[in-house]
Amino acid sequence: MVDLLYPKTPLYYLTEVFMTTKKIPDIIIGRLPLYLRALERMASNGEIVTSSKELGEGVGISAAQIRKDISQFGEFGKQGTGYNIKFLSEKLREILNIDRVWDVAIIGAGDIGHGVARYQGFLERGFRVTLAFDNDAKKIGTKVGEVEVQNIEKMADALNASDVKIAMIAVPAEYAQDVADKLAKTQVKAILNYAPIRLTVPEGVHVQYIDPATHLQWMTYYL
Amino acid sequence: MVDLLYPKTPLYYLTEVFMTTKKIPDIIIGRLPLYLRALERMASNGEIVTSSKELGEGVGISAAQIRKDISQFGEFGKQGTGYNIKFLSEKLREILNIDRVWDVAIIGAGDIGHGVARYQGFLERGFRVTLAFDNDAKKIGTKVGEVEVQNIEKMADALNASDVKIAMIAVPAEYAQDVADKLAKTQVKAILNYAPIRLTVPEGVHVQYIDPATHLQWMTYYL
Repeated sequence: MVDLLYPKTPLYYLTEVFMTTKKIPDIIIGRLPLYLRALERMASNGEIVTSSKELGEGVGISAAQIRKDISQFGEFGKQGTGYNIKFLSEKLREILNIDRVWDVAIIGAGDIGHGVARYQGFLERGFRVTLAFDNDAKKIGTKVGEVEVQNIEKMADALNASDVKIAMIAVPAEYAQDVADKLAKTQVKAILNYAPIRLTVPEGVHVQYIDPATHLQWMTYYL
Repeated sequence: MVDLLYPKTPLYYLTEVFMTTKKIPDIIIGRLPLYLRALERMASNGEIVTSSKELGEGVGISAAQIRKDISQFGEFGKQGTGYNIKFLSEKLREILNIDRVWDVAIIGAGDIGHGVARYQGFLERGFRVTLAFDNDAKKIGTKVGEVEVQNIEKMADALNASDVKIAMIAVPAEYAQDVADKLAKTQVKAILNYAPIRLTVPEGVHVQYIDPATHLQWMTYYL
């Protein structure tokens, strides 16, 4: 296993090759934020060291799976002594590229847009809303969180003048695909979509979805 | 590998309560709200009839899988003529128990609580916030959406005097398990948790998770 996360070693230079020849399954990447979230909780409780067993209980995944997932990226724990929480958190942040703060644009300044723009949890976890857009003249010029809402017609120019690569779509479903099409022509490469509709985007643009009503409707089946 | 629900989410791993034995696999139930969401979109576009192929394109699931899923519940379409959108929507609403409006309690009147309480999308899809609670004296007596925030100490009594079986937790992570423990002693049987922490609940209580930061952190890996 190439120890790709120690930049001081010559192996650092192989990282690019490593990443392209041995693609780590998407599903493993998707579990890392959960591990990180649990580790951050442990750290805030004053814990120093954890085990794959304890971490597993915190995320509902087996200890064996966690060891296997983490070992894809290097040897971050020692047999018998477990993981240093601070060290493993830092490594996961590096792997996930959140050892920095990402600027984020929000499109749609309605209830969801406002809630999202004000949400402190984003800033604590690597994201900061710096641009906001809407097509409603009544909303343009108002603020969501700390950010002034701009006319959506200025979106492409404003995005291209920024370093924003992440956007959140919080417009009604009927406008969401049009917004996604416009975003795909900018440097935005990651979209978190709150509109209850599936989006079609070009290859290289990532989309994920938030739709609390689908979760509620799933649960009501069992009530 | 688990056939993750579209929209793909690592939070699926946290929904362990659903993994207990059920006649129809819980993963199929989880896809029904997505089918319904796509059907409702078609209906609002004035469409009358759809096919499993078209529906599949709307949700990113194969036509064969959709036919198989829907056939678990009966024969709702005809070979060659497809599905009547209104009829299939009604059937899915019946199956999911959302041919009615569910009252919902929100615990936590911060940014998320406000966003959720005002979100029109819930009402359109079967859910109405009727109770809200917080432990902050400054918030008690104020309103989230249309609902007055009550002291969280009155939560158990207020819930038991209501017909609320669904609660949304929107408190900071360090308080979420305590709130879940209190909810588990009421008639609440479904929890949508916005706090970034895994909850432990008694058997028979369903929990699902919303955590946009985990989605964003997943995508930043690829940026």
